[in-house]
Amino acid sequence: MKYGIVIFPSKPVQDEINSYRKRYDPHYALIPPHLTLKEAFEADDAKIAELITELKHIANDMEPFSLNINKVSTFAPVTNTIYLKVNPRQELFDMAEKMQTGKFPENQTYSYVPHITLAQKLSEDEHSDVYGSLRMKDIQFEDTIDRFHLVYQLDNDIWTVYESFVFGKEFV
Amino acid sequence: MKYGIVIFPSKPVQDEINSYRKRYDPHYALIPPHLTLKEAFEADDAKIAELITELKHIANDMEPFSLNINKVSTFAPVTNTIYLKVNPRQELFDMAEKMQTGKFPENQTYSYVPHITLAQKLSEDEHSDVYGSLRMKDIQFEDTIDRFHLVYQLDNDIWTVYESFVFGKEFV
Repeated sequence: MKYGIVIFPSKPVQDEINSYRKRYDPHYALIPPHLTLKEAFEADDAKIAELITELKHIANDMEPFSLNINKVSTFAPVTNTIYLKVNPRQELFDMAEKMQTGKFPENQTYSYVPHITLAQKLSEDEHSDVYGSLRMKDIQFEDTIDRFHLVYQLDNDIWTVYESFVFGKEFV
Repeated sequence: MKYGIVIFPSKPVQDEINSYRKRYDPHYALIPPHLTLKEAFEADDAKIAELITELKHIANDMEPFSLNINKVSTFAPVTNTIYLKVNPRQELFDMAEKMQTGKFPENQTYSYVPHITLAQKLSEDEHSDVYGSLRMKDIQFEDTIDRFHLVYQLDNDIWTVYESFVFGKEFV
């Protein structure tokens, strides 16, 4: 089964981000707006049970922290993905790193850049139009992060949440 | 904010149910296949924090149980909703009832029928065609239930999971 680990921002932030994704992100209907902590990886039932214990420890070592977003950026020319740049809180890098070590499969391909995708799989021309338009917008958010979610992908490509991990509140 | 409380069956069961929902359920893209424990209700942040504590107690009082599905049924003529009938495990009624009492808002309109929707909002003719075809199929599942999820609805009507509650595993 294919799993991933993500942070969902609060509802008002998701709603505003969706107003952009709706037009530009073909994954709009597959998963709500999210910040990925660990990209998709394969795990069987025994492995995921083991990783859930690890995720509880990771969550319990965290405290809620605030996240700031104030810039639209792009991964071009690597990929034509346009995203909201998230202020590089150390907490995000620490969590992402823990999810690449120990019992976790190592599946980080690029260096970790905390971000929320707005647009992807655009042609060259679309990318430059959309990026030109989105970067002019005054998109600013501050949000409090107190949890992350383990998600899995169905055959129709939609992601379902398996479990939430609330900082400092997990029973191990 | 609008919340609901649901059980998601396991991935193989969701995948098969989606193969029917895709054609007949306009909510197909809004939420994965689910068994509703408590219909949509409004709650503010303070109220939901209070209810989350209650939900942890409810989950901790439960043990995993098996769910059997072996019949397609319909709510017609009340509504043209076609659903999978879930064997009436007492656990489901107990949980649903606890979510209507004490600190929870009372919002149960019909008597509680544990079910997973396959098709809804069909015209009279569609309903009778689709019901005729689905009731002939040999749809049988057995699944183990060990958690439920608190979900909330975004402005685009898609539901996001806020928190999972795993039976016997919640820290209160």
